[in-house]
Amino acid sequence: MFAEIITIGDEILIGQIVDTNSAFISKALNKIGVSVYQITSVQDDKSHILKALKEAEQNADIIIITGGLGPTKDDITKKTIAEYFDDHLVQSNEVLDNIKRIWKDYIKKPLEQVNIDQALVPSKSEVLMNLYGSAPGMWLRKGNKVFVSLPGVPFEMKGLIDNQVIPKLRHSFKLPFIKHKTILTYGLGESSLAKRIEGWEDSLPNFIKLAYLPNLGRVRLRLSGKLDHKEKLETEIENQVKSLLPQIEDVFVGFEDDESIEVIIGKHLTNLNRTLALAESCTGGKIAQSLTANPGASKYFKGSIVSYSTETKTIALNVSSDLINNYSVVSAEVAEAMAKNALTLFNTDYALSTTGNAGPTKGDSDVEVGTVFIAIATKYTVYSKEFSFGNNRFRVIQKATNKAFEMLLKEISKK
Amino acid sequence: MFAEIITIGDEILIGQIVDTNSAFISKALNKIGVSVYQITSVQDDKSHILKALKEAEQNADIIIITGGLGPTKDDITKKTIAEYFDDHLVQSNEVLDNIKRIWKDYIKKPLEQVNIDQALVPSKSEVLMNLYGSAPGMWLRKGNKVFVSLPGVPFEMKGLIDNQVIPKLRHSFKLPFIKHKTILTYGLGESSLAKRIEGWEDSLPNFIKLAYLPNLGRVRLRLSGKLDHKEKLETEIENQVKSLLPQIEDVFVGFEDDESIEVIIGKHLTNLNRTLALAESCTGGKIAQSLTANPGASKYFKGSIVSYSTETKTIALNVSSDLINNYSVVSAEVAEAMAKNALTLFNTDYALSTTGNAGPTKGDSDVEVGTVFIAIATKYTVYSKEFSFGNNRFRVIQKATNKAFEMLLKEISKK
Repeated sequence: MFAEIITIGDEILIGQIVDTNSAFISKALNKIGVSVYQITSVQDDKSHILKALKEAEQNADIIIITGGLGPTKDDITKKTIAEYFDDHLVQSNEVLDNIKRIWKDYIKKPLEQVNIDQALVPSKSEVLMNLYGSAPGMWLRKGNKVFVSLPGVPFEMKGLIDNQVIPKLRHSFKLPFIKHKTILTYGLGESSLAKRIEGWEDSLPNFIKLAYLPNLGRVRLRLSGKLDHKEKLETEIENQVKSLLPQIEDVFVGFEDDESIEVIIGKHLTNLNRTLALAESCTGGKIAQSLTANPGASKYFKGSIVSYSTETKTIALNVSSDLINNYSVVSAEVAEAMAKNALTLFNTDYALSTTGNAGPTKGDSDVEVGTVFIAIATKYTVYSKEFSFGNNRFRVIQKATNKAFEMLLKEISKK
Repeated sequence: MFAEIITIGDEILIGQIVDTNSAFISKALNKIGVSVYQITSVQDDKSHILKALKEAEQNADIIIITGGLGPTKDDITKKTIAEYFDDHLVQSNEVLDNIKRIWKDYIKKPLEQVNIDQALVPSKSEVLMNLYGSAPGMWLRKGNKVFVSLPGVPFEMKGLIDNQVIPKLRHSFKLPFIKHKTILTYGLGESSLAKRIEGWEDSLPNFIKLAYLPNLGRVRLRLSGKLDHKEKLETEIENQVKSLLPQIEDVFVGFEDDESIEVIIGKHLTNLNRTLALAESCTGGKIAQSLTANPGASKYFKGSIVSYSTETKTIALNVSSDLINNYSVVSAEVAEAMAKNALTLFNTDYALSTTGNAGPTKGDSDVEVGTVFIAIATKYTVYSKEFSFGNNRFRVIQKATNKAFEMLLKEISKK
């Protein structure tokens, strides 16, 4: 069973926004055994949309369209869909009631014609109620194929996918079983890893595929299986993972299917009933932000001192200015003092600190751009490591964050 | 002049990674007057890649392919491109030398066959040297059309686009002139804004298009013009903006072409020689991280206290526990105390604080999920505002961050 995703909107094609909707929809479809054949981003243009719909109908059984449903003049999706189905637009009273409710409860302004027009839908479509916004989802059939049109606003689209589209697809099609298992590794490059596990990879059964996903110091190994027999697939994937793990013991960090390393750390800390504090300099709040993006962070995360200037390391973190003068603000000594002092200040079981120079120019220290020290303090120990993360600011911050999580997970996992 | 972008990789189609490359490439192409007709994401599959190449050749003059060039077994792009051009792969000594250099300087391990194979390129291709990685870019011509194949690793791809592809395209084609101007507004919904400026919008000349880009409390208005005559286009867009601004004075924040609001704030503070500190609770470091993602943040940003538990507001920020007990940790009083104390602690001109409940469950306070107080302190004043940002954690954090920047920019812009 194949799907195609069509995203409509000039803002994607001029690069003003990144299309995150397609990844969300692809993940949701994969989970129910629907493979995405292609993702196509097209212009807000009638003939282009018609062409994309026609091609998608040839490639796929399920066509999901997002975007182009807003109230303003650059949106022509709905009229084009009606034309594609030899149909016309009619007012949906159900949608109009929803729009009236939203305007009464949230917008608190009089309804305008552009909003009322959002209740127009192709007469052949089944409305998918959008509880979070005024643009409805629409479900249309053509022979055995299903077309779904959704608003482009991510959280409205997500609500419709989770609550309406996925359940209706499950009900409409007999779907095979798909399973992914992703293994997170740190510290070995893609090609060295590939060479090391070559024998194992070559012996994988043909219904399981392996992909390497390298990213700034970590490589994810993704196993993807597809089979009608659910238990057989799950057992086979588990067995393959079991035979792989001893070969990559030194670089294996964990499994990451829907879980990032920060979520894994959060779960460990919560289970162990332990707490964490941070003292961030060159990462500028990125580590705190990554942790607190996930619900439940307040169970283990006490706080961070983002000390973005030399003097604030003294003021807010009580790092002595003598130490800074003797060793420089980017040094193992200062990193360790930051971690120790954060541990004491926040009274936590673990504290992690970063100090470095993310670039593009040298700061209060003479060290090279890209030099970063990361320190970890516990009640029993404090240590630090030095890294060179290159001279691209974005990558230095991201690599330092990745490495910090790697060091932290290793520390937490110590027996 | 039209381009099509083809991204290759199952990891995009299963939703494991978001395709950010296409947005970067689209933006770079638009700047030199090349419109992106379509973005197509296809599977790591020979027949699918061949089909996409054929269709792109019909639609566009320039075809940019990213991904599928890694050293491991799931990559078949290069062989397929050779087949499409009736060509075969040959070893490029120039590429091999680059690989040897990278292995010697950075990897510091013996070269393996999979790495040596990365030096294979179609014999008809012109190599685009990738200084940041082992997979080369390739430039091929077919009649008047140009095909470019690039590695999928974002920073390698970016280096090749900026340093090689864009200059070569400028040299190969006579290109029209494109100009975008994006106006950032806060506080008025898409449809209200559309209604207010309807008359102005209707009078736009046909070579200028308007798009509405709404996102969590802000709407960007994007004007896009395309004309052979550069000066005429620039003048016309400036005149249109001048006639629009008086109509949206109350919601206008600034221009955002390549600039986000945090960059605009950073420039203002740097120019005014003023400094900023933060005290973040519910935003968990997001505001600090957004500011420090940009170079030069250390000129104006002193630091942030991320106080993620009630007691750390007392410990690290010196907010009295009486105040917290009397008013609750999520209150105007606590928000204002956090801002005032951050101002004092970091000795800055401005301080901003957030306290609230991002959900999904209620925390140490009884307030509803989504309630957020944002306070601003200066040497002369302190004030706060209360908001309800709904019950989606991600959106609460993002909306609070957006609103904080909006309040901050207004405060900084005060005469």
